[in-house]
Amino acid sequence: MLLDNSRSMQTTLTYFPGFKWRPYLKMAKVADTENPLYLKLGGILKEVIVAYETYGHISENGDNVILLHHALTGDSHPAAHNQHDEKGWWEPLVGSGCPLDTDKYFIICANVLGGCQGTTGPASPNLENGLAYGMDFPEITLLDMVQVQKRLLDLLGIKHVKLIIGGSMGGMQSLEWAVTYPDFMDGVMAIAAPGYSSSQSIAYNKVARQAITLDPGWQGGNYYGGNGPEKGLAIARSVGMITYQSELSMEGKFGRKRRNGCFEIENYLDHQGNSLARRFDANSYLYLLRVLDYYNLSDSCKSYEDALAQITGKVMVVGVSSDILYPPYQQEELVEAMRDCGVDAEYALLESPHGHDGFLIDFHLLRPLINEFIKKLTIGKVTKN
Amino acid sequence: MLLDNSRSMQTTLTYFPGFKWRPYLKMAKVADTENPLYLKLGGILKEVIVAYETYGHISENGDNVILLHHALTGDSHPAAHNQHDEKGWWEPLVGSGCPLDTDKYFIICANVLGGCQGTTGPASPNLENGLAYGMDFPEITLLDMVQVQKRLLDLLGIKHVKLIIGGSMGGMQSLEWAVTYPDFMDGVMAIAAPGYSSSQSIAYNKVARQAITLDPGWQGGNYYGGNGPEKGLAIARSVGMITYQSELSMEGKFGRKRRNGCFEIENYLDHQGNSLARRFDANSYLYLLRVLDYYNLSDSCKSYEDALAQITGKVMVVGVSSDILYPPYQQEELVEAMRDCGVDAEYALLESPHGHDGFLIDFHLLRPLINEFIKKLTIGKVTKN
Repeated sequence: MLLDNSRSMQTTLTYFPGFKWRPYLKMAKVADTENPLYLKLGGILKEVIVAYETYGHISENGDNVILLHHALTGDSHPAAHNQHDEKGWWEPLVGSGCPLDTDKYFIICANVLGGCQGTTGPASPNLENGLAYGMDFPEITLLDMVQVQKRLLDLLGIKHVKLIIGGSMGGMQSLEWAVTYPDFMDGVMAIAAPGYSSSQSIAYNKVARQAITLDPGWQGGNYYGGNGPEKGLAIARSVGMITYQSELSMEGKFGRKRRNGCFEIENYLDHQGNSLARRFDANSYLYLLRVLDYYNLSDSCKSYEDALAQITGKVMVVGVSSDILYPPYQQEELVEAMRDCGVDAEYALLESPHGHDGFLIDFHLLRPLINEFIKKLTIGKVTKN
Repeated sequence: MLLDNSRSMQTTLTYFPGFKWRPYLKMAKVADTENPLYLKLGGILKEVIVAYETYGHISENGDNVILLHHALTGDSHPAAHNQHDEKGWWEPLVGSGCPLDTDKYFIICANVLGGCQGTTGPASPNLENGLAYGMDFPEITLLDMVQVQKRLLDLLGIKHVKLIIGGSMGGMQSLEWAVTYPDFMDGVMAIAAPGYSSSQSIAYNKVARQAITLDPGWQGGNYYGGNGPEKGLAIARSVGMITYQSELSMEGKFGRKRRNGCFEIENYLDHQGNSLARRFDANSYLYLLRVLDYYNLSDSCKSYEDALAQITGKVMVVGVSSDILYPPYQQEELVEAMRDCGVDAEYALLESPHGHDGFLIDFHLLRPLINEFIKKLTIGKVTKN
């Protein structure tokens, strides 16, 4: 059910005070008591609202849809809708004349399940008692996120998409889509995303989660109405920020420079940590990190190979040369495994000094890769028909 | 002043319950009210006790002394003194017939200033009030650690050492020695230690410190007599353990294996964290991480080049190929900079998959390197005389 997108209505959907209402935000209810969402790990959600934004217009035969996924702390707002609107996280890539060309394509970007920017998550009211779920929110996985998005597309009457694309957690969602609904897309482009999470990435996530739950402000997750675990979340974010950059890019930016008695890198991490603590719900962070830990493409199939063999569309996997969180060898391995399974997969390396965050910085390098891949999808399409 | 090493006497020197009394531990007072220790950053210590251990016997002309330094959470116990004694952190390298041959050399290893295994640190009684210093302990640097060790050697009547050696923080101390007292040694061997701390390493340390001080058990550092910030210290240790290993070694050991509802890597980090929380004082951890942040060989001189140009002895710097904390390029740069300053420095790469901790694991690779370097020092000595 498509919902009214008035501001008053939306703010009743979350107890998270950092929820940012946006004028172009759209809302849809994709699960209710009649049609609950059954989750991979056994939980049930009797109400799921999805917050999403769309750009451009759908063509008459519906062949111009692109599904774009955000990363861990992103949202449904990759780009401004007009010159007065706030800039988005992929601004240079989404718009008129951009690779994700809003003159040509109908682009959909939804906040993920478990998120805190409009889509149902731990800060949403639990129908059982009207209070925020907190840690009563059921455990979720990337497969559940994909289910929610599929329901949204069904609701919008979309039967097929041209491209599914995203970076980091958004890349993982794109790959899960390709395994789960292989016939639903022409192609998938996953940037800085492996086929499963490594133990090192799980280790970083564990440390981040522990910092949040150690904060007395966390109160077992029942902090809504109060300040919440701001310090713990800031530490968690700092862990993330270290892994999103390369050692060399950090050294180049900060080195041993000092200000106000601290090293500049410390001031930077404080700033980043405190910024996130204002705009992101700590419980969402806990749940989404666990989603990353659980991520393994083989989860929906008998084996990793069996999962990859499901894929029928074209795949482009992009690694970032200096990525320390999901090092490029992981993406290379994924592409090799896909090819062994007969998938039409290609690998590209983004030669970037910026580490994992390269996919949010090196737009000039991403632009030709996306353009080229979309071109291939279009040519492939014409040839086949 | 050399002190009585009875157990009862030693346990009055620290409020840290995890202090491990050892039968071969020796104690010396190297600063008192008559001869206080003036610290690099302005503080003064009116009493400094050093806990140390020695192996082998000093030769008649005193030309067989080796000074060995431990790393961050190490202690004065690199090896067992006999078959009944507890094994040490460099067991296979220190002993009869080992590279640090106790039949040939007189080996000294002291617990660092600011530590918690016998040497004066935040858990030591503050002479002003008899209570543990806690956060009233003054800020220290590696230069202060070197001063303390120099005073210990003076007290022992040692005028010159053959070799100064250590890994990680122990390597940094070795290098600081070479810059500060260049004529005092024939050679220096620093393993997995750069010439200064990078912003990334400072970032990791910041996160670790924040986890400790976020723990309500920390109580501003005044936790002696209680449990202290055990959870915070465990998180801090987990951050460390991630950086001490390589992504590949972690993946090989843990992968996505699970046990008791957790990933094995999580169980491992919990175990390591809890172990350290029992054996290490959280305030010491805070102070020593800051020592690492402050580390820059140029601190005692006008410039980095000026500092390196002080060095007169032979230098061997060893990088570990898979080290993500102090990547080998940092050691290569250090050696190049030394050579540019006319220092007789050589670089060796430990081809190890074990990351930073390689210097505590790959003894078979370290053994020939140490043997060869000591041989060079001995030959050089003979030639010169």
